[in-house]
Amino acid sequence: MTYTTPVADILFTLNHVAGLEAARREGLYGDLGDDLIAAIVEEAGKFADGVIAPLNRVGDLHGVQFKDGEVTTAPGWKEAYHAWAGAGWNGLSAPVEWGGQGLPYSLNAALLEVWSGASMAFALGPLLTTSATELVVEHGSPELKATYLPKLVSGEWMGTMQLTEPQAGSDLSTLRTKAVRAGDGTYRLTGEKIFITYGEHDLSENIIHIVLARLEDAPAGSRGLSVFLVPKFLVNADGSLGARNDVYAHSIEHKLGIHASPTCSMVFGDQGGAVGYLVGQENRGIACMFTMMNRARLAVGIEGVAVAEATTQQAMAFARERHQGHIASRPGRESAPIAEHPDVKRMLMNMRALTNAARAICYATAVAIDRAHAAPDAAARQAADERAALLTPIAKAFSTDIGTEVASLGIQVYGGMGYIEETGIAQFYRDVRVAQIYEGTNGIQAIDLVTRKLPMADGQALATFVGELRSTVETVRGSNDPAFGAAGRRLGEAVDSLERASSWLVDNLKDDIDAALAGATPFLRLFGLAAGGCMLTEEALAAQRQGEDGTRAAARVTLARYFAEALAVQAPALEKAIVDASGGVVAADTVIAS
Amino acid sequence: MTYTTPVADILFTLNHVAGLEAARREGLYGDLGDDLIAAIVEEAGKFADGVIAPLNRVGDLHGVQFKDGEVTTAPGWKEAYHAWAGAGWNGLSAPVEWGGQGLPYSLNAALLEVWSGASMAFALGPLLTTSATELVVEHGSPELKATYLPKLVSGEWMGTMQLTEPQAGSDLSTLRTKAVRAGDGTYRLTGEKIFITYGEHDLSENIIHIVLARLEDAPAGSRGLSVFLVPKFLVNADGSLGARNDVYAHSIEHKLGIHASPTCSMVFGDQGGAVGYLVGQENRGIACMFTMMNRARLAVGIEGVAVAEATTQQAMAFARERHQGHIASRPGRESAPIAEHPDVKRMLMNMRALTNAARAICYATAVAIDRAHAAPDAAARQAADERAALLTPIAKAFSTDIGTEVASLGIQVYGGMGYIEETGIAQFYRDVRVAQIYEGTNGIQAIDLVTRKLPMADGQALATFVGELRSTVETVRGSNDPAFGAAGRRLGEAVDSLERASSWLVDNLKDDIDAALAGATPFLRLFGLAAGGCMLTEEALAAQRQGEDGTRAAARVTLARYFAEALAVQAPALEKAIVDASGGVVAADTVIAS
Repeated sequence: MTYTTPVADILFTLNHVAGLEAARREGLYGDLGDDLIAAIVEEAGKFADGVIAPLNRVGDLHGVQFKDGEVTTAPGWKEAYHAWAGAGWNGLSAPVEWGGQGLPYSLNAALLEVWSGASMAFALGPLLTTSATELVVEHGSPELKATYLPKLVSGEWMGTMQLTEPQAGSDLSTLRTKAVRAGDGTYRLTGEKIFITYGEHDLSENIIHIVLARLEDAPAGSRGLSVFLVPKFLVNADGSLGARNDVYAHSIEHKLGIHASPTCSMVFGDQGGAVGYLVGQENRGIACMFTMMNRARLAVGIEGVAVAEATTQQAMAFARERHQGHIASRPGRESAPIAEHPDVKRMLMNMRALTNAARAICYATAVAIDRAHAAPDAAARQAADERAALLTPIAKAFSTDIGTEVASLGIQVYGGMGYIEETGIAQFYRDVRVAQIYEGTNGIQAIDLVTRKLPMADGQALATFVGELRSTVETVRGSNDPAFGAAGRRLGEAVDSLERASSWLVDNLKDDIDAALAGATPFLRLFGLAAGGCMLTEEALAAQRQGEDGTRAAARVTLARYFAEALAVQAPALEKAIVDASGGVVAADTVIAS
Repeated sequence: MTYTTPVADILFTLNHVAGLEAARREGLYGDLGDDLIAAIVEEAGKFADGVIAPLNRVGDLHGVQFKDGEVTTAPGWKEAYHAWAGAGWNGLSAPVEWGGQGLPYSLNAALLEVWSGASMAFALGPLLTTSATELVVEHGSPELKATYLPKLVSGEWMGTMQLTEPQAGSDLSTLRTKAVRAGDGTYRLTGEKIFITYGEHDLSENIIHIVLARLEDAPAGSRGLSVFLVPKFLVNADGSLGARNDVYAHSIEHKLGIHASPTCSMVFGDQGGAVGYLVGQENRGIACMFTMMNRARLAVGIEGVAVAEATTQQAMAFARERHQGHIASRPGRESAPIAEHPDVKRMLMNMRALTNAARAICYATAVAIDRAHAAPDAAARQAADERAALLTPIAKAFSTDIGTEVASLGIQVYGGMGYIEETGIAQFYRDVRVAQIYEGTNGIQAIDLVTRKLPMADGQALATFVGELRSTVETVRGSNDPAFGAAGRRLGEAVDSLERASSWLVDNLKDDIDAALAGATPFLRLFGLAAGGCMLTEEALAAQRQGEDGTRAAARVTLARYFAEALAVQAPALEKAIVDASGGVVAADTVIAS
């Protein structure tokens, strides 16, 4: 089975739902043309389908080998990475001054779906490199930038993000890795980090670690953390590689999935201290981290979309090929492709509807990030920044939740063969599961949504977004198009539930914060269903407006209608679960203690 | 981490929700005493916790080895199996005349939860042996019974069920394995079977294969299938083992989970034909299979309960130990056990509520099977048989769906550590996934429920059951106990939705069968939520009535309330998804083809 980049779908959602085309017409991207965007997605698709996708199962079977602190990646991975970076894909949206192409971030986000769809374990390395790069671009000193950015942007060097320690997973305030001033402006780091993605490997000649650590005289808690850049090899004044730095991988984890991505335990300072360079200011590390956090969280959400897309493609292809059983409504006993059985159709519709809705949410978030940087006036930038902040937890958590759901449906469509590793569907199921956990568990995303994003700008960020959803509801209702069935009504009810639940949560943030937190996860789901439903409907309306090919436009309408009638319809139940059941959760100690 | 058999919960649900105590008082089980039942569950728990559970991870890591047609199980497995069978557990509910103990089937079903909770891969072998044994008990000739039953009941020999072929998974009508009359009353079989659980292994000295095959002159389709008993070793007249029969394992599958359970491809007749003995009549094989199908399907549902229980236990223990973050409603920044965070509480409540509801449904099905055999009058046996038939697809599919959901929540509670194989949570997630597939995929269960079970007895089987659910709703409403919150109302709405959706489906079975089939899976979920919610409430009411220890009774009320308010509340949305969206599913070809 192979992955085929869904070029047309990616472009349609990016342009007509996420708003890339509108932003382009407003001049946010200079003279960037429609045709160039399409050509880039198409070209990326060729590389992903032809070079990366064939390595996905190889990587899963082979995993990575760890010996004496060195990590060897799977056969073919190094060559593929070099070809990928050599083709310039790594620096697509990086600043031109450091060798990047300065293209929209949202286009890069769409390409992250392409790389991750071909192989999530492969795309993870570049994803971390991008995060490390962004941090240096935003907060690095001129010397750090000059030394590290050209090779990070080209992909010759890769990056890591090192936050987690055994006692500090979701709660970074208890981090212990220590930094000491060396007296020459540099620092010496000692400590241990765990769960470090691509912490050690053989894909690039140097690895640039971004490390959260605590100065010896820093205050306790998260306000005492600083960010350091710690290269695997020190860099000489002429740019050549110098001494091996005192940071080593100590072991690798045996994980449920993403076997080809090395997850390392790292030790700093076993030989006296790893040389580190401060990024930003002392004790301002958490603030620095926040600048790349939205993008990193969105990137993980896109992994969910990517694996969901890959699974959906493969399950649909299988279901069209596999014959089993006859169709009850037809005469005769001839066996039919399982894609024609109503129960299998329902599974495939769920897969496609959830995947496309999550894609729309993620891309809309990415375009908002672009607007937050490039919109002409400050108020528009501020509004876009808030939009990105509001949508990021949904992009991350909803998309990765449905990533797992879609992969599980993929197994079910395959039946017994889905449980056998040879078909590759089980790998999707194993790989994507981590995306619900890392970069802030989905529970933490939900808490972020309720405690920080709902009250943001005195509720205006939410209100503006809900207003847009209402406008979609009004448009589809006003269209009186019977092809949309009950979609208008169901989406209207979903948005009503979203608004009422939001008010209840904001009220309880003051009066009963435990109850508000207990409702956070069902609320995020409710938000994702209302937003995803409206966005798919927006996409269907756009297809009709654009005069997209009749069959494709009809398929978008069918899909939007299905999402509204079968999935968004859960919104009122989620509202009740939030409002009624949160008290019961808070009182749950008798159940949990027993 | 260890599994601890939940003896008290098992007994409480078995006696007071599933109705074992009532059946016992009616004399269905002779003079079987309450204390003996409790002693048996307790003793089984000691064996499971002490002997089987420690082998679960060993089995996962080691898997099974295949070489030259022989399968070697993981270290310690053979000894554990012999100790288990030697203690008499295999024949607990088998007929006394063949060496069994003749205890209630429902008690054996509860013990299947115990064995599967300790290790699903271990319990699978005995599960298959039981199915093979039941088939011979019901349909075997006196000679077959005398030759095979004593050693199948003792567990000295194990059994398999061989149905699936590459082209025939869900649809058995296309089976090709061929049987030829040898002229001496025996048959010679040739063909291939796949996905055969414990098809070859070293746990027992002989393996008794039950094989579905087609006589050369049989009609096409499923009406041309016959059942054969094909021993690995032929059995001499004196009961000793004779020649090796011509049936061999050809390869084993590399699966997502249950690594310790060998899943074999089998070849019959490579050397001319495997000797087989007819079970029942020629061409009546499918009817024979149906006699063990309800029990086998229920057994798979119980696997879902068992893994959900094991995961819930382990996640709760972890959440009570692991400290991370402070509680927002408390002063200070001291880190708390994650079990005290509202969002984690909600996950743990979902896990416990879904697990206990599925257990209640499965045990109620098991007691109905007992009643169907042992009730004094024919009408009562008929009604119980229909009850078992009605509940079986829900017991199988709802319980295994929630098995996967609960295992996934378990990973989420563990966070990053859940993704690492060492903690064992990922194994639960991998192992239990197959239970949604085998013994009839959950989609097929849903279709069975809608097409065969709803119309059964002209709808009376359903109506009687719904009447019992209504009576629970009335009782909890009438109690006016504020501890139940909105449970009465929500369960009432759920039962309303169940009734309306049932009527809609039954109508559409005649008018638009595709639409009815498209609604089957959401309907099964709706049924499971309504039934599970009412049963948990029944359990809470029973705890109050019985004067169970105050804390435990209060915990049952809290759990029942949570299930009703947070989970059963989805019922009206599922009803809408069935009624509104089924048409959209049927019209989905434009989406699926693209």
